[in-house]
Amino acid sequence: MKILIINGPNLNLLGKREEGIYGSVSFDDYFAILQSKFSADNIEYYQSNHEGDIIDMLHKAGFGDADGIVLNAGAYTHTSIAISDAIRAIKAPVIEVHISNVSAREEYRHKSYIAPSCIGTITGFGLDSYRLAIEALKAR
Amino acid sequence: MKILIINGPNLNLLGKREEGIYGSVSFDDYFAILQSKFSADNIEYYQSNHEGDIIDMLHKAGFGDADGIVLNAGAYTHTSIAISDAIRAIKAPVIEVHISNVSAREEYRHKSYIAPSCIGTITGFGLDSYRLAIEALKAR
Amino acid sequence: MKILIINGPNLNLLGKREEGIYGSVSFDDYFAILQSKFSADNIEYYQSNHEGDIIDMLHKAGFGDADGIVLNAGAYTHTSIAISDAIRAIKAPVIEVHISNVSAREEYRHKSYIAPSCIGTITGFGLDSYRLAIEALKAR
Amino acid sequence: MKILIINGPNLNLLGKREEGIYGSVSFDDYFAILQSKFSADNIEYYQSNHEGDIIDMLHKAGFGDADGIVLNAGAYTHTSIAISDAIRAIKAPVIEVHISNVSAREEYRHKSYIAPSCIGTITGFGLDSYRLAIEALKAR
Amino acid sequence: MKILIINGPNLNLLGKREEGIYGSVSFDDYFAILQSKFSADNIEYYQSNHEGDIIDMLHKAGFGDADGIVLNAGAYTHTSIAISDAIRAIKAPVIEVHISNVSAREEYRHKSYIAPSCIGTITGFGLDSYRLAIEALKAR
Amino acid sequence: MKILIINGPNLNLLGKREEGIYGSVSFDDYFAILQSKFSADNIEYYQSNHEGDIIDMLHKAGFGDADGIVLNAGAYTHTSIAISDAIRAIKAPVIEVHISNVSAREEYRHKSYIAPSCIGTITGFGLDSYRLAIEALKAR
Amino acid sequence: MKILIINGPNLNLLGKREEGIYGSVSFDDYFAILQSKFSADNIEYYQSNHEGDIIDMLHKAGFGDADGIVLNAGAYTHTSIAISDAIRAIKAPVIEVHISNVSAREEYRHKSYIAPSCIGTITGFGLDSYRLAIEALKAR
Amino acid sequence: MKILIINGPNLNLLGKREEGIYGSVSFDDYFAILQSKFSADNIEYYQSNHEGDIIDMLHKAGFGDADGIVLNAGAYTHTSIAISDAIRAIKAPVIEVHISNVSAREEYRHKSYIAPSCIGTITGFGLDSYRLAIEALKAR
Amino acid sequence: MKILIINGPNLNLLGKREEGIYGSVSFDDYFAILQSKFSADNIEYYQSNHEGDIIDMLHKAGFGDADGIVLNAGAYTHTSIAISDAIRAIKAPVIEVHISNVSAREEYRHKSYIAPSCIGTITGFGLDSYRLAIEALKAR
Amino acid sequence: MKILIINGPNLNLLGKREEGIYGSVSFDDYFAILQSKFSADNIEYYQSNHEGDIIDMLHKAGFGDADGIVLNAGAYTHTSIAISDAIRAIKAPVIEVHISNVSAREEYRHKSYIAPSCIGTITGFGLDSYRLAIEALKAR
Amino acid sequence: MKILIINGPNLNLLGKREEGIYGSVSFDDYFAILQSKFSADNIEYYQSNHEGDIIDMLHKAGFGDADGIVLNAGAYTHTSIAISDAIRAIKAPVIEVHISNVSAREEYRHKSYIAPSCIGTITGFGLDSYRLAIEALKAR
Amino acid sequence: MKILIINGPNLNLLGKREEGIYGSVSFDDYFAILQSKFSADNIEYYQSNHEGDIIDMLHKAGFGDADGIVLNAGAYTHTSIAISDAIRAIKAPVIEVHISNVSAREEYRHKSYIAPSCIGTITGFGLDSYRLAIEALKAR
Repeated sequence: MKILIINGPNLNLLGKREEGIYGSVSFDDYFAILQSKFSADNIEYYQSNHEGDIIDMLHKAGFGDADGIVLNAGAYTHTSIAISDAIRAIKAPVIEVHISNVSAREEYRHKSYIAPSCIGTITGFGLDSYRLAIEALKAR
Repeated sequence: MKILIINGPNLNLLGKREEGIYGSVSFDDYFAILQSKFSADNIEYYQSNHEGDIIDMLHKAGFGDADGIVLNAGAYTHTSIAISDAIRAIKAPVIEVHISNVSAREEYRHKSYIAPSCIGTITGFGLDSYRLAIEALKAR
Repeated sequence: MKILIINGPNLNLLGKREEGIYGSVSFDDYFAILQSKFSADNIEYYQSNHEGDIIDMLHKAGFGDADGIVLNAGAYTHTSIAISDAIRAIKAPVIEVHISNVSAREEYRHKSYIAPSCIGTITGFGLDSYRLAIEALKAR
Repeated sequence: MKILIINGPNLNLLGKREEGIYGSVSFDDYFAILQSKFSADNIEYYQSNHEGDIIDMLHKAGFGDADGIVLNAGAYTHTSIAISDAIRAIKAPVIEVHISNVSAREEYRHKSYIAPSCIGTITGFGLDSYRLAIEALKAR
Repeated sequence: MKILIINGPNLNLLGKREEGIYGSVSFDDYFAILQSKFSADNIEYYQSNHEGDIIDMLHKAGFGDADGIVLNAGAYTHTSIAISDAIRAIKAPVIEVHISNVSAREEYRHKSYIAPSCIGTITGFGLDSYRLAIEALKAR
Repeated sequence: MKILIINGPNLNLLGKREEGIYGSVSFDDYFAILQSKFSADNIEYYQSNHEGDIIDMLHKAGFGDADGIVLNAGAYTHTSIAISDAIRAIKAPVIEVHISNVSAREEYRHKSYIAPSCIGTITGFGLDSYRLAIEALKAR
Repeated sequence: MKILIINGPNLNLLGKREEGIYGSVSFDDYFAILQSKFSADNIEYYQSNHEGDIIDMLHKAGFGDADGIVLNAGAYTHTSIAISDAIRAIKAPVIEVHISNVSAREEYRHKSYIAPSCIGTITGFGLDSYRLAIEALKAR
Repeated sequence: MKILIINGPNLNLLGKREEGIYGSVSFDDYFAILQSKFSADNIEYYQSNHEGDIIDMLHKAGFGDADGIVLNAGAYTHTSIAISDAIRAIKAPVIEVHISNVSAREEYRHKSYIAPSCIGTITGFGLDSYRLAIEALKAR
Repeated sequence: MKILIINGPNLNLLGKREEGIYGSVSFDDYFAILQSKFSADNIEYYQSNHEGDIIDMLHKAGFGDADGIVLNAGAYTHTSIAISDAIRAIKAPVIEVHISNVSAREEYRHKSYIAPSCIGTITGFGLDSYRLAIEALKAR
Repeated sequence: MKILIINGPNLNLLGKREEGIYGSVSFDDYFAILQSKFSADNIEYYQSNHEGDIIDMLHKAGFGDADGIVLNAGAYTHTSIAISDAIRAIKAPVIEVHISNVSAREEYRHKSYIAPSCIGTITGFGLDSYRLAIEALKAR
Repeated sequence: MKILIINGPNLNLLGKREEGIYGSVSFDDYFAILQSKFSADNIEYYQSNHEGDIIDMLHKAGFGDADGIVLNAGAYTHTSIAISDAIRAIKAPVIEVHISNVSAREEYRHKSYIAPSCIGTITGFGLDSYRLAIEALKAR
Repeated sequence: MKILIINGPNLNLLGKREEGIYGSVSFDDYFAILQSKFSADNIEYYQSNHEGDIIDMLHKAGFGDADGIVLNAGAYTHTSIAISDAIRAIKAPVIEVHISNVSAREEYRHKSYIAPSCIGTITGFGLDSYRLAIEALKAR
């Protein structure tokens, strides 16, 4: 099974950014663990700080051979109708993930334009949110 | 006469995205038709999923040799103060177009930050909205 | 191709009414230009100050041989549910046009009962809005 | 007994208009059934898309020999004080009918200026609303 | 001097409609009296239950040879933006009249779209309101 | 025929008070013209700045030999329930007049306690409003 | 015991004014009955339509030999702070009376500026309200 | 210099009315003192409980030879549009005075219709407010 | 007689600050005039931009030998509860003065914490407001 | 133990100011009692009407040898962010006291900027509030 | 060039007050550095916890020889209309500075009465905000 | 020292865009002056109309060798949570600058998502705001 993880703005800084909230593990290290865990599957990973890049990649994977997409849109979650439209436009199913419990943080992080276009949301389990999303895709 | 068409996010998916709303023709195919139709004119086409690319192109064309710009800002229509500022800053006239009848869709698609900076709006004619906008520019 | 232009109340006064807003050309003069421009087509023009006449004509043309209707409903745009119902009931496509940019005028002119029943709207191009609407119909 | 049925705007299109709401039977066909059902009575039928025509006919019948009037004012139900005044002005009793359950449709169809001037309202029984209104008139 | 009286919906019923409010004299009889009274002037009279007819006549007289117009718009007083637009568009002065004291009746009769477009208002004198309006026009 | 004109507070200052609104003719001069115009009638004129005097005079004339009263209650129009009660109590008919179009001035001048008790209102014709009111009374 | 009855505006018209509300007996006739009923007392009666006169008389009686005052201030009840001040200024006790049940009439008759300055109010008993007020004064 | 003092309702009771608020000196006694104090000037005094008398006197003095007017309108301060209109209509300057500190009393005494038409206000100095107002007029 | 004038913040700038509102005379020059005018009295003048100084001075003078205090608290009028408390606490009478008619200026200058604690207010007479206040004190 | 009592504006007037609220004992007399009661401690007392002085003294004592401060900020309690900041800036603990129950007095005395910076508040016990505050400091 | 720095309440505690927010350097030490840095200029420094002192100094410098003023009004920033009035009254330009980033602190520190009267604002640079403000003044 | 200036959308148009607000100097010309002024330092300049580019550059410089960043985020100031998050995530200090006094412009330009993440803000000094920000960084 082929699954793409897309990370949005500032998530390239995991491990060196606000560790109290996001932890001290880099996403590359975590991604190696994920890959070994799902060694029978083809897990890929993409990150960009550009709203447009995320849309570009959703298009490419969503009309390509990806069987599913795990998306952490970062702060664009709260402001981007364009990413939401992209998710609705493509064929591959998309799951929204967040590392922290965003609904327990600042008010402006409570609104998600992304969620209504996704098949589901997993939030608050730290990096394990990504593994759970892959499990969810595999179980469909 | 030199005219630039600028398409915003997800409009590269035309022909394979929510066909009930946006139709089944790709913009590339449509653009070839447009160019042959206006063979005496210089019609160019630019698409990007990036808000910044749209601003860049508005600047380049709007202070360059474009006699007019046809803009479908997609979902950025509803969120971008920066694009609206760019339209007001440049010299070339801009016409807002939409493929679908946005006033008959979701509430959040009724607000346009773009419209007050444009000279007019053409909405709901599918891809032909673009041709009509070119006609409108040529008739000025 | 057979196309009917329907103008609503007070539009027979074009050229002699509030020229700052509506211009100084009469619709008859403009219509002659339109007809010569579309000499291969059958363009007809109907004006009435009567809400009922507009509905009758929409029915007659909309179930008759009109291939499309261009409607500027004037002040009835803001008050007539019956005209909106008629547009939805008939077979011929209807395009809403306005000479001025109505969204930039009095608040009570922002509400359109007509728009959601039409296939599209062309607004803000002066009398050229009519020509563009005909082009739009011919292109369908 | 002499009874006049008056139908307002767009009701001449019954059978060929939005069949999901209004059914596929034309009013002429239905009217033939009505007449055979009430063969001992004199049932007449009038339709117009003009607010003014409806007022004219209410005047003519209401001061003529009609023993009762069944009125489906269509969209004018929601906007016409003038028809309401006409009903109050005439001698014959008027019953308001609607084919669909208007109170279960768009908000702007909930307001009736007509109702307070009528002796009663029958709504939501499809075309049978007309028969029930005639029964009601005959039972007075 | 040439003066046109325009009566709106239901005013043809004067003399046989709610006599407590509107009196028992028909407008035709009254008009004959008016004409003999102003035999040196050219007084004409027009009635229609149609909003559009009233606009037509305002245009015709207002750009024709009428020196003034006396308008009782009946129930359209309270609902017609189109008639108000017509008054503002024409050249002849218009005086608003009412037979009954509308400010002492239903709340919805207190709002006049017509009044702000007229030069003055005469209300509550029964049919004599018309004569007084003619006197007012002659005295200008 | 005997007719009484009653003017309320500050109307004795006509001709020397806020001439932009009220004109530069004194009421005495105007009254002389009125009297010569209606030389066959007995036209009297009374002015007082006293609410009580206006009530007294309404009583005296209203149960006396006055065939009608023309009342411009000035600022008491907006504050006096007692004058309104007096009008309703007496036999002679009362007509409310205003020189200016009060509905186009300060908000607090839009409310009239007097109007619903009068038989009619004439407003906006300058001093000619008084002559029209006399004509109205003579015609009853 | 010396008691003064003061009647305000329009109460001089009792017996010939809106008999449905105020009855058909004149106050003079009623006053004769009152005097015979209280023949051992000195009952006097004063009426004026002037707010100022009522204040004058309250002053005169209230600092004179009156043992009590019965006041029906008519419409001034609802607008006069000055009468209320006068009641508070004088020495004699004042009872507010009304013939009709003012709280069951128009909204603007519900507010009494007079009541808080009086020792009590008797309202709604027709002319008998006056007798009850005298009884009340005598019982103090 | 000629100055007129105008006192409104209940101010004739000074010296025998609510002494805690208004003091125990009568205005006549106080006025004699004032006159002797300003023996070189012509100080006149007028009191009335009648709103109309106050307007009359404002007109008479304000278009006569008064060099200034000192006005204590009493309770009419809070209710009279007519007095305010009179002040604005006349030529002589008017100063508003109050004996007590009205802003420290009942809420309904805080609103002054009079103040915006006057040149200044002197309040709270007992009877001396009048002398101060005369000084203010003399110093202009 | 000993009288203290207290001026609050920024009033030391009189004559060189916003002359359109406050005039071009310095307070020192004006004070010299005041002193010569009241040469038999002991008039002192104190200015401070300090809220605490004003309170200290109110205490010192208010329990000392001052027979009265004239206070223009400037901007502290609108913010200082402490000054208001001080006025209420002391024995000497305090008069509030303002040079301009503050009720005709910015909304936030309409609220006075000072006024209810003073014996009276003199406002709108320019610098002469101070002289009038001294007169008022001398007359007590 | 060294304790400083700081009293704010107008509290130097205790014993001669609004005795109904604040009592008739001067703070000096009360302070002598306090000192004898806490003879083993070093109790000092400071009063100023200046917001700035209170801040100065808080600084001096709060960084000096005071073991605690008892502060009655008077009216500054309700307006001074600066005193609140000073309390937060210093090292010595501060207790807020009030003689009267301020929350039961005027609305504007309910807001305390001081309270959140103090360790506690004692209010409503008359002068005994000070003793209780000292007890509270000693018990820490 | 002559520049005055004015510091408001509690800023004398710099170096020993909430060091996490304000740092550990005293303003005196910092000022010595400033002076040596701008040795060619005349930099003066003034601090007071008194609102009035700040106004005094603004007046003195603002009408004296200061070429510019750097003002950190501390907590008075949020409460003082009098300081804002002073800035508007004087001639020298004033720059508002803050040591901490006030927009990231308590809500009540977000409102500045001072800012609209200043030419610009520098906030959040610790003590260096002062130096920057001097640079800004020197560069004008 | 290495400092990066980042300018957001439309700031590349400085000198040819709304000169009344932004001035007529291009940023390139200004930047040359800045570089010669800070010739001992390494000042770089980056402009992008892309939100993502600004984030990328903040990351690159903020974890690279930049000693500080000066950011004018243009219209993204008011809409970008992602840029604000990036500032908080990186190590290099960021200073927010604005050319004009934004708090004195359109309401929607008063909200800054950027400010709370920056170390300070410099606003209102024209292009000199950038120089001051560099000075601020150099001084840290």
